[in-house]
Amino acid sequence: MARHYLDHASTSPIRPVALDAMVAALDRYTGDPGRIHQEGMATRAAIEDARESVGGLFGARPREVVFTSGATESIAMAVWGAGERGPHQVFAAIEHSAVRRSAERAGRVTVVGVDADARVDPGELVAAIGPDTALVHLQWANHEVGTVQPVHEVVAACRARGVLVHVDAAQIAGRLPIDFGALGADFLSISAHKFGGPQGVGALLVRRGVRVRPLLLGGEQERARRAGLENTPAIVGFGAACAALSLPGTLATEATEARGRIERIASAAIAIEGVRRYGHPRERAPHLLCLGIDGIEPQAVLLDLDRRNVAVHSGSACASEGLEPSPVLEAMGADAHRSLRVSVGWSTTDADVDAFVHTLPQVIGRLRAYHP
Amino acid sequence: MARHYLDHASTSPIRPVALDAMVAALDRYTGDPGRIHQEGMATRAAIEDARESVGGLFGARPREVVFTSGATESIAMAVWGAGERGPHQVFAAIEHSAVRRSAERAGRVTVVGVDADARVDPGELVAAIGPDTALVHLQWANHEVGTVQPVHEVVAACRARGVLVHVDAAQIAGRLPIDFGALGADFLSISAHKFGGPQGVGALLVRRGVRVRPLLLGGEQERARRAGLENTPAIVGFGAACAALSLPGTLATEATEARGRIERIASAAIAIEGVRRYGHPRERAPHLLCLGIDGIEPQAVLLDLDRRNVAVHSGSACASEGLEPSPVLEAMGADAHRSLRVSVGWSTTDADVDAFVHTLPQVIGRLRAYHP
Repeated sequence: MARHYLDHASTSPIRPVALDAMVAALDRYTGDPGRIHQEGMATRAAIEDARESVGGLFGARPREVVFTSGATESIAMAVWGAGERGPHQVFAAIEHSAVRRSAERAGRVTVVGVDADARVDPGELVAAIGPDTALVHLQWANHEVGTVQPVHEVVAACRARGVLVHVDAAQIAGRLPIDFGALGADFLSISAHKFGGPQGVGALLVRRGVRVRPLLLGGEQERARRAGLENTPAIVGFGAACAALSLPGTLATEATEARGRIERIASAAIAIEGVRRYGHPRERAPHLLCLGIDGIEPQAVLLDLDRRNVAVHSGSACASEGLEPSPVLEAMGADAHRSLRVSVGWSTTDADVDAFVHTLPQVIGRLRAYHP
Repeated sequence: MARHYLDHASTSPIRPVALDAMVAALDRYTGDPGRIHQEGMATRAAIEDARESVGGLFGARPREVVFTSGATESIAMAVWGAGERGPHQVFAAIEHSAVRRSAERAGRVTVVGVDADARVDPGELVAAIGPDTALVHLQWANHEVGTVQPVHEVVAACRARGVLVHVDAAQIAGRLPIDFGALGADFLSISAHKFGGPQGVGALLVRRGVRVRPLLLGGEQERARRAGLENTPAIVGFGAACAALSLPGTLATEATEARGRIERIASAAIAIEGVRRYGHPRERAPHLLCLGIDGIEPQAVLLDLDRRNVAVHSGSACASEGLEPSPVLEAMGADAHRSLRVSVGWSTTDADVDAFVHTLPQVIGRLRAYHP
């Protein structure tokens, strides 16, 4: 039976172009890029090519790209790096757990609420800045409901006040255009696997001139900003995915297709009684959708869909190995226990959408019949 | 022209068995292992299989294995994790820069010297423990000269005093047998790529019952000890490399072959006037060799060897993008500016050894003729 994978916001399968580049690199770039022998220098060149491709897609200078093991490390690096400037950090209640938990550990935090659409009020976020604030966090797009935040406004306000600002772009990178230079943020975190790059690699973009203490210490890799042997095959695959998305029209076409599929899913879902859509009606990521379903355990919906070969996600999108209430939905004032997240990606087909649209009413009908 | 790669102590090419497993995993395990759909659960099962293989090779229970992005992160995690127990850490002067720099940042440190063979005096190391000591570090084998340390004695003494102890096994894992359970250390760090596993993955072994705060926060991955999406393809490749080395006789055969090749290289090298071997005469890792060469810049030797298709390493083995004097050789009282490291691995052939043995005298002769 064909599977219909609609959980790309958790992780997207690797794109063929990234897979091919990675497999070739596994064979070809076998040296330590810090060494001056031929194997090392060929590997160094491959990494620097990838850095240009990554910088190119995100509007960053190559030197602004620091390769990490993924967005969680990128976020921890921003939190730790900024932490020496002061004991206080500011974030919104809908941030990913990696931001929330890292910042909470770094010292005192101010958590700013959101409206019913999960939007942050920029004025409120900026008003939380005090004289000892080291860093303000704002995610570009929410990982559960897709709401896009007013990042440009918040970044400009933080820069005007001389406070560092970190944008968590893990859920939007490779989905909507990002111009790091024009945005002006000090830090921006990216995960490769969320948009079809390899797992185990990501980046922290660090604005030119911003100096931060490294989280991982040892060798002088990544211009002494991140120690540890570079993960060359994954970096090369990441670069290939970014280069493919930089081809004219590619990102825009994928985003349009994703938006069309998500809207078709949304229309079919909200036509079912007791099903609603969460998130901002206009300002949202193209590729994901969060549905509230009255009266049924989301885990039961998920498992029944899975048996019918449709894979989606339910519960908190942050917590692994657990189905805790969603802090995002709680912050929005919604029922945090009964949500279903559906997300599409580069490999999604119309048949996947058809399968979901066809199956969801059956599953909800069956479960409601059992638990009226 | 065939290349002769003799820099396995920096990084070893990926073994075919690990490459095949990794490439298959890239295609097959596309779900987030924290999810309960079929894609997620298949991925979870693959990770747990790999965890058993890794634990199996190193004598650890699967639950004691925490997957990381590599040894540098493993070390940072041990340093950070133990840091809440006190402000003081102890290590020997020959530790890898990841240990030295991480520990120095964590608070006060006591650095213990070594003898001319790079051996630590266990009594001296243990005597440096004070009432506020959180962690003692000792590398199992040195990354530059190969000296093996009296880890069992040091671990036992630390355990008797109730002080946490971390063994950096990055240079010995997959080279000599490791029995984490019998050793009794609290932490042991491992890098996969040093012995033919994938880059971008490693492990911190954490003794059962030892609770430490995580370095990376966010999701509950790795039993809430290391947040961030698991790097499944690399973890699967790591597991495959460990499973292959767990086959009866494999590790011992590879170690015997490595030792034979290194001894042949050593004999030929020290037959040249003004060339000496560093490190302990008996207690040493099988796969690497550090040579001191009088009167010639090691970088010139390296580049000339490289032109003749032999890849080795010179200078500090810790520092990337630099050729600083070696802190290891300095601690031994040796000339820290004129060393050459030669290291073998699973893919090394007798032809590689022949090439080095044939070429080194020519290179040294040529350089000495230019710079008498």
